[in-house]
Amino acid sequence: MRIALDAMGGDYAPRPIVQGAVEAVSTLDGLEVTLVGDRSAVEPLVCEFGGDGLPLRVVHASQVVGMDESPAEALRRKPDNSILRCWQLLAEGQVDALVSAGNTGAVVGAGLFMRRFIPGIKRPGIAVTIPSPTGPCVLIDVGANTHPKPEHLFQYGLMGMVYAKEILHVHEPRIGLLNVGTEGVKGNELTRETHRKFADSHLATQFVGNIEGRDVFAGRADVIVCDGFVGNVVLKVCEGLVEMMLRTTAEEVIRRQDGQGRAATLEAFETLKRRYHYSTYGGAPLLGIDGICIICHGSSDAAAIRNALRTAAEFARLRVNDKIKSELALD
Amino acid sequence: MRIALDAMGGDYAPRPIVQGAVEAVSTLDGLEVTLVGDRSAVEPLVCEFGGDGLPLRVVHASQVVGMDESPAEALRRKPDNSILRCWQLLAEGQVDALVSAGNTGAVVGAGLFMRRFIPGIKRPGIAVTIPSPTGPCVLIDVGANTHPKPEHLFQYGLMGMVYAKEILHVHEPRIGLLNVGTEGVKGNELTRETHRKFADSHLATQFVGNIEGRDVFAGRADVIVCDGFVGNVVLKVCEGLVEMMLRTTAEEVIRRQDGQGRAATLEAFETLKRRYHYSTYGGAPLLGIDGICIICHGSSDAAAIRNALRTAAEFARLRVNDKIKSELALD
Repeated sequence: MRIALDAMGGDYAPRPIVQGAVEAVSTLDGLEVTLVGDRSAVEPLVCEFGGDGLPLRVVHASQVVGMDESPAEALRRKPDNSILRCWQLLAEGQVDALVSAGNTGAVVGAGLFMRRFIPGIKRPGIAVTIPSPTGPCVLIDVGANTHPKPEHLFQYGLMGMVYAKEILHVHEPRIGLLNVGTEGVKGNELTRETHRKFADSHLATQFVGNIEGRDVFAGRADVIVCDGFVGNVVLKVCEGLVEMMLRTTAEEVIRRQDGQGRAATLEAFETLKRRYHYSTYGGAPLLGIDGICIICHGSSDAAAIRNALRTAAEFARLRVNDKIKSELALD
Repeated sequence: MRIALDAMGGDYAPRPIVQGAVEAVSTLDGLEVTLVGDRSAVEPLVCEFGGDGLPLRVVHASQVVGMDESPAEALRRKPDNSILRCWQLLAEGQVDALVSAGNTGAVVGAGLFMRRFIPGIKRPGIAVTIPSPTGPCVLIDVGANTHPKPEHLFQYGLMGMVYAKEILHVHEPRIGLLNVGTEGVKGNELTRETHRKFADSHLATQFVGNIEGRDVFAGRADVIVCDGFVGNVVLKVCEGLVEMMLRTTAEEVIRRQDGQGRAATLEAFETLKRRYHYSTYGGAPLLGIDGICIICHGSSDAAAIRNALRTAAEFARLRVNDKIKSELALD
């Protein structure tokens, strides 16, 4: 299993990226990581984290796409950036997967530019794993495609289902369409047409119909399909809300406790932070790529990178793309 | 101040609705409430809650729109429903405001059908008040208009600003446009055109540009503008997430505490529930109506109804609509 890792992508890159890579290759059998980025910055870190002699190599890329740069412009102005180099390694068959915590728009943009899609897939979509009372579920798309067609959303449901089954071990994933009401006629033209597409497809029995916002964290579906604009806003709103709530809740509880109670409360909140933290979920796959692309949160630490590399390896081992192809053939 | 209150609207109607009305007219000077609904159900409750002799009257409506009924169909099939009767009382000038915890789609649908808009306003929008670290802020629209035009979103910003200033006492409200990135060119055609409209308007100095999902609960804007599809999904996702988090957080903290600590923790969570509870915020106005329309959460209790009646009275006293008209004249 060979993975290209964008060493320069992320708010704190390259340090935690390189650290995560060293940790991953030390613990995962058969993993080879290609660190893509500025050789003069990356190589000393490999050495510092004790990576010498491990299955790691560095491929130089002289340019970096900034986290807040306009993706389209950055990709045009910086042809030797680390993200595009990762995609090229994938296209050349030098690696099986790529992992990046860099500018998400640029990772997706470069992927669309390369057009290495699974045959039959019209547009890839980003799937994130979110917690629910009945276990983890998949929200797709969270930003790869802000102008989707009904067919794109249908394929997101299909791919999300395979992902939920193979990677999250959900036995028979239920697919829901995120909408403003539960009746089939609710919402806009996109959701109405998508609803019909699911209902008329071979996935009809797994399709639970429209689900509302409040059902997202109620475990009513294992795969939640939405357009990339809505998904992106929802994901980020949730991030902000969790952060605010954990802070204000901790304050409210702690100011009523004495020393021992406070220690116990702080411990509880550490557990909760881990439960709700993006790093627990090992990155978000860009589903629909012929190959594997895992997108990590910009603020990824070494643990998040390590988990993302493990997810990419699992994705390959379980032949998720082959199963997506089989499902596509059924439709 | 005369308010028509939909006595039959809400998950637990008419009981908590009538109770809230009795409590409101007992405590708010100059308030007269018209309870609209099934006379045989409403009058005994007025009596039971001690409302006889208070400024309450009952206007009979023989039909009720169910909470899960299709709004368009219900309005067509049930011409004598309590929601439509409330709107008619407003149109006839018999009341200054209407308050309903009934089927939101039907309340909005009946309002659109009556077309009693403030002159110059193209489409009304629902504004909800949400908490943030810097104080309450306004999210508009959360479901009245799922196919808005840029001009609608611009007017939502304008009306939301007046509401934040007058009702929430925000000195100089900052208006943000909910989007998938902060640059002006981000998002879809709707957001790009809306961005331009704000930047070229008399509200340009108050417009802070695009804000991302994670900024919603970070206090980066006092008025957050979005289309009704996105706003509805976001609002409901947040409701579900808050519920799940309060439950799981309480569990996690409590299982680490002893008796006294548990009592203190439970008290803290009661405070938090109140802070995040819809009833605290007194209902959501449908802004843009020539008159006042306050929409309450379906699960409203008597306290929520009382707060909504108070909000409607404040809305009238502070002449919010006159101030919206003045702002419209500036553009």
